[in-house]
Amino acid sequence: MSMPTDPVANLAALIRCPSVTPAEGGALTTLEAMVRPLGFSVERPMFSDDGTPDVENLYARLSGNGPHLMFAGHTDVVPVGDEAAWTHPPFGAEIADGFLFGRGAVDMKGGIACFVAAVARHIETTGRPAGSISLLITGDEEGPAINGTTRLLDWAAAKGETWDAALVGEPTNPDALGDMIKIGRRGSVSGTVTVHGRQGHVAYPHLADNPVRGIVMLAEALMNPAFDEGSDDFQPTNLEVTTIDVGNAAGNVIPARATLTFNVRFNDRWTVETIQAEIHNRLDKAAARLRLRPGRKEPVAYDIHWGVRPSHVFLTRDDRLIGTLTSSVEAVTGRRPGLSTSGGTSDARFIKDFCPVVEFGLVGQTMHMVDERVALADLETLTAIYQRFLADWFSGN
Amino acid sequence: MSMPTDPVANLAALIRCPSVTPAEGGALTTLEAMVRPLGFSVERPMFSDDGTPDVENLYARLSGNGPHLMFAGHTDVVPVGDEAAWTHPPFGAEIADGFLFGRGAVDMKGGIACFVAAVARHIETTGRPAGSISLLITGDEEGPAINGTTRLLDWAAAKGETWDAALVGEPTNPDALGDMIKIGRRGSVSGTVTVHGRQGHVAYPHLADNPVRGIVMLAEALMNPAFDEGSDDFQPTNLEVTTIDVGNAAGNVIPARATLTFNVRFNDRWTVETIQAEIHNRLDKAAARLRLRPGRKEPVAYDIHWGVRPSHVFLTRDDRLIGTLTSSVEAVTGRRPGLSTSGGTSDARFIKDFCPVVEFGLVGQTMHMVDERVALADLETLTAIYQRFLADWFSGN
Ligand SMILES: [Zn+2]
Ligand SMILES: [Zn+2]
Repeated sequence: MSMPTDPVANLAALIRCPSVTPAEGGALTTLEAMVRPLGFSVERPMFSDDGTPDVENLYARLSGNGPHLMFAGHTDVVPVGDEAAWTHPPFGAEIADGFLFGRGAVDMKGGIACFVAAVARHIETTGRPAGSISLLITGDEEGPAINGTTRLLDWAAAKGETWDAALVGEPTNPDALGDMIKIGRRGSVSGTVTVHGRQGHVAYPHLADNPVRGIVMLAEALMNPAFDEGSDDFQPTNLEVTTIDVGNAAGNVIPARATLTFNVRFNDRWTVETIQAEIHNRLDKAAARLRLRPGRKEPVAYDIHWGVRPSHVFLTRDDRLIGTLTSSVEAVTGRRPGLSTSGGTSDARFIKDFCPVVEFGLVGQTMHMVDERVALADLETLTAIYQRFLADWFSGN
Repeated sequence: MSMPTDPVANLAALIRCPSVTPAEGGALTTLEAMVRPLGFSVERPMFSDDGTPDVENLYARLSGNGPHLMFAGHTDVVPVGDEAAWTHPPFGAEIADGFLFGRGAVDMKGGIACFVAAVARHIETTGRPAGSISLLITGDEEGPAINGTTRLLDWAAAKGETWDAALVGEPTNPDALGDMIKIGRRGSVSGTVTVHGRQGHVAYPHLADNPVRGIVMLAEALMNPAFDEGSDDFQPTNLEVTTIDVGNAAGNVIPARATLTFNVRFNDRWTVETIQAEIHNRLDKAAARLRLRPGRKEPVAYDIHWGVRPSHVFLTRDDRLIGTLTSSVEAVTGRRPGLSTSGGTSDARFIKDFCPVVEFGLVGQTMHMVDERVALADLETLTAIYQRFLADWFSGN
């Protein structure tokens, strides 16, 4: 049985599995075969939910005496897009000019391949770690994310699993390996606002209530003023109105209703509850002002429906976890990584309810694009960083 | 051959023709049979145009020595809507409680029925008028209005026809017969504005340009401030944004473009050209301001497409025409009608290029509605008003 110490070989095997979300595509089976020789016990729970595809997941555990480290990630990948535009087949794992090409190379089969190689090298050089390592790998990160990490955490916790820290292997570096560790994420809340007017003829506006007038004012109130100027650890809160729709094809008719949808990414100055209250407050104030428009007697009638799964903001403050990862990156790359909370949400938003969590992986530039690829040198460097981190974290350095 | 002196009988015959636009439905044939006994010569030109239905029209002329009066109107009607909701069949011309029920009763077979009766009574009591009367009746007023009045005017003018004045028999009275003569109409211009942004992910707004932000600001700039406060003869100019559409179903995506459509009804402080220039100016200024948003480097890119057939504003200043009609209304009803320019456009916008034009007809309350109906008393009163007008206008009183 060969030990999976080579991240390039590990990644090539994973890329050859066409695990386009939500398909397992052989990726979890390949990963299971890779980690069993290291002594991991492996379980493959399948989760399902009405209206979403069934998804297979993997939980692997290498047990030892000492603290418990979770490595989290996903083997599902986004679709290949325009396959004809790829210079190398997206599931071919071909190597050219020092790069390994394939869908998932950086997001994030590459991170998994490096972490497994790091564990293998750690065991070869140092023996089994002074603690436990678990791999929490989902096949539902790029899809609805309902039957993935959040279910897997609940499932493992129900079995009595606890963790002391978690490392997510998503690509966190904008330009070069060593740029950035993510230590938190903004929260995210979506909503849909509908303004109810009264239909009529454009020549008789005093007999109608134009809901477009209302939706424009409510959109204005959502966008301005700025919610904040950022905080010590976070970017400013930002709201984008992603669509406005009326669907009125009759050019001489004032329509009956208008709808907008927005998404707000908020920092640690807010919670889901306070940002929703602020949005309610802005809408109410704008709707009340519109009541004063000459000739209009009624206030603007609107309703709001909140998106079903808001994401809470979080910031990890575990000095041992962050400090050990930072020093490992610096020791291997010679560069001190920034500690960031920027970008979109990740599955770390679920993990943070169970233990402190940080994210560090490859360079994200080609993720989700045609010709997704990773430098072979980066795979070696990330493996070295992970190996250093394992050694230092388990030894308490 | 019976003389069409009874407006109730005339109208009942016309209502029984189901001339839902653009169908002739027998209405023009019925009208032709009605006016031939009065001495009118009748022509029935059919007009067609790519992409619109063929439409039949009617031009009838009673020739005499003296000025030439045009009576203009339409025999096409809007669809019946919810037929089951009618208490009397929409093409049954049933009489109940002093009302004649039917689609077109007030808009505007009723106006035609009364005018024909007035001409018949004038001939019976006074003899043929000291001048010419023509009926310019289209079957395309409620439809696209492309193969109707505008074509009929050009067709007649090409044959050498000229007119000294025109009376349009549309329902002009809001509440009671005698309320209102229309002596002009606002202009109407429509346009569609598209804002071009750059697609992206809501978590990375600095990498995208959200066109929704732009469309909201441009809509604001179109709606505010008010264009004017009205003029001596006209209501204030009014702009309504009738739709905004983006069609972005992905809640985490900033879309690539956003579109709005507007319609402006403008008074005699503007022309089609100056109102379009003002709108361009508002959009350009708003687009330039948006360039200053922090983090945004490019100005807002937008384009505008104007609706193909703007309506020009007009105001009739013919004292003889307006004065004679006003005194006729007052003599018959005891009420002095207001001179108005309110409401939507009408075919008078085409006629005004050929001769002075005013509009006076029935009470419009039930037009386009279920149970469209006219009071029998109103048919008699309007006939009397038209008869008095014919007598006074041809005698120069
Ligand atoms: Zn990912
Ligand atoms: Zn009409």
